[in-house]
Amino acid sequence: MILVNGIATDNISAQDRGLLYGDGLFETIAIKNGIYQHLNQHLKRLTIGCERLGIPTPDLDQLREELTLINHSRGVVKIIITRGQGGRGYRSPEPVQPTRVISFHPWPEYPADHQQGVRVRVCNLRISTQPALAGIKHLNRLENVLARNEWQDTTIAEGLLRDQQGHFIEGTMSNLFMVKNGALHTSSLDQCGVAGVIREIVLELASQNGIECHIQNISEAMLKTADELFITNSVIGIWPVVEVMGYNHYLKGTITQQLQTLLEGTE
Amino acid sequence: MILVNGIATDNISAQDRGLLYGDGLFETIAIKNGIYQHLNQHLKRLTIGCERLGIPTPDLDQLREELTLINHSRGVVKIIITRGQGGRGYRSPEPVQPTRVISFHPWPEYPADHQQGVRVRVCNLRISTQPALAGIKHLNRLENVLARNEWQDTTIAEGLLRDQQGHFIEGTMSNLFMVKNGALHTSSLDQCGVAGVIREIVLELASQNGIECHIQNISEAMLKTADELFITNSVIGIWPVVEVMGYNHYLKGTITQQLQTLLEGTE
Repeated sequence: MILVNGIATDNISAQDRGLLYGDGLFETIAIKNGIYQHLNQHLKRLTIGCERLGIPTPDLDQLREELTLINHSRGVVKIIITRGQGGRGYRSPEPVQPTRVISFHPWPEYPADHQQGVRVRVCNLRISTQPALAGIKHLNRLENVLARNEWQDTTIAEGLLRDQQGHFIEGTMSNLFMVKNGALHTSSLDQCGVAGVIREIVLELASQNGIECHIQNISEAMLKTADELFITNSVIGIWPVVEVMGYNHYLKGTITQQLQTLLEGTE
Repeated sequence: MILVNGIATDNISAQDRGLLYGDGLFETIAIKNGIYQHLNQHLKRLTIGCERLGIPTPDLDQLREELTLINHSRGVVKIIITRGQGGRGYRSPEPVQPTRVISFHPWPEYPADHQQGVRVRVCNLRISTQPALAGIKHLNRLENVLARNEWQDTTIAEGLLRDQQGHFIEGTMSNLFMVKNGALHTSSLDQCGVAGVIREIVLELASQNGIECHIQNISEAMLKTADELFITNSVIGIWPVVEVMGYNHYLKGTITQQLQTLLEGTE
């Protein structure tokens, strides 16, 4: 089921700037037991993204109402907001009439990664530095596509992305955390990367529960000597990382488990 | 008039990866006197772009046949090739069934910039370094959109883009050339920027006609002390630049005029 500007259809205009330039944003939201998970935080990030790109912020009441039309108890809903049609070349049309696309997708079948942990690789592609786009979940995702296409082995759950300087920033579809000496570390996302909703929630939960949090660049040396490693996103929640291929093996540690339990408590 | 996979329609699937991730490429081709300008070069760049992104290269005979259906003597045709629908997240579908979109647009009404030259500004946004995407005309164009939206003054024809190190790489919709002591200089595009078809042709024409060509980084100091400056793309051809706001004024020089005449000879 797909809704485009509130109307059930499978199509959008071939002149939409989302297609022409990737001129827009998206959110991927989990539905569990019929409830949209962390919906307020997703809509907040979407609003911030629109402000950053200069796209009129969507009517959130209208968006919430349309979301209630998705009648599934479990699955994934994707919201796309674009700058709509028109404009001469790259220049924005005046006025902007944004396009909103809401689509439902079945829950993806992952193995028992949540409990056992996953094996990940390090991608060759280095993500680019762009403060103007860093943090927001925009539609320019060719770097993620190219990085994800580096491997076909289905036993590798994720690929880690470094920036041009070699810092570990995130995964192709997730944020990256490490634990060292009882403290939590995750990369700063002011130069590149996507500030995931679960990343924000994990940071809040950690700090509410007395776990020291550091937002800083994660070097190769730090990654290799981490005590625990995990990745997060809105669909997977928290996946412990038990191996970074060619780098090191890790145990699923107590802080990862504690944060998994705390995160489940927010559902 | 729009053709999507050969069928006349205004729409594409809302699940197309061109919309979801900007996962594709485009070409903008001028039609003058009923003839597609530099068509072979455009199709060659499109093919190279597909190879770089791992998208199956389009059937060029089929594409040429579809282009003949556009029955206009003057205008602009845009070709978009995407990785099609499907795939789990960023991962490519198997097999990939690319989407091709061909659309006709009326000739844009520009003032007499070709003769008199244009005034340009320097954009605040710095473009990012990404060798994996440099040179090709992919659909991830948010940087161009944000840069183009920095100004509304219609007397400013273009904005120049610098990389993170401050080198002048290109314009938001054009390539940048400078002339100094009789030699032609244009930026290297192996780290960022789009390798325009007209840029390639201008470089060929210059070297065939005994004009020394340098492909190198253009610094602020070089730009300020240039003898002549011009920008190129498939629709504008060559526009002399007579002012870079806040930097310097330039005369429309003899080499710019010579290259304009040579370029007209290729139409």
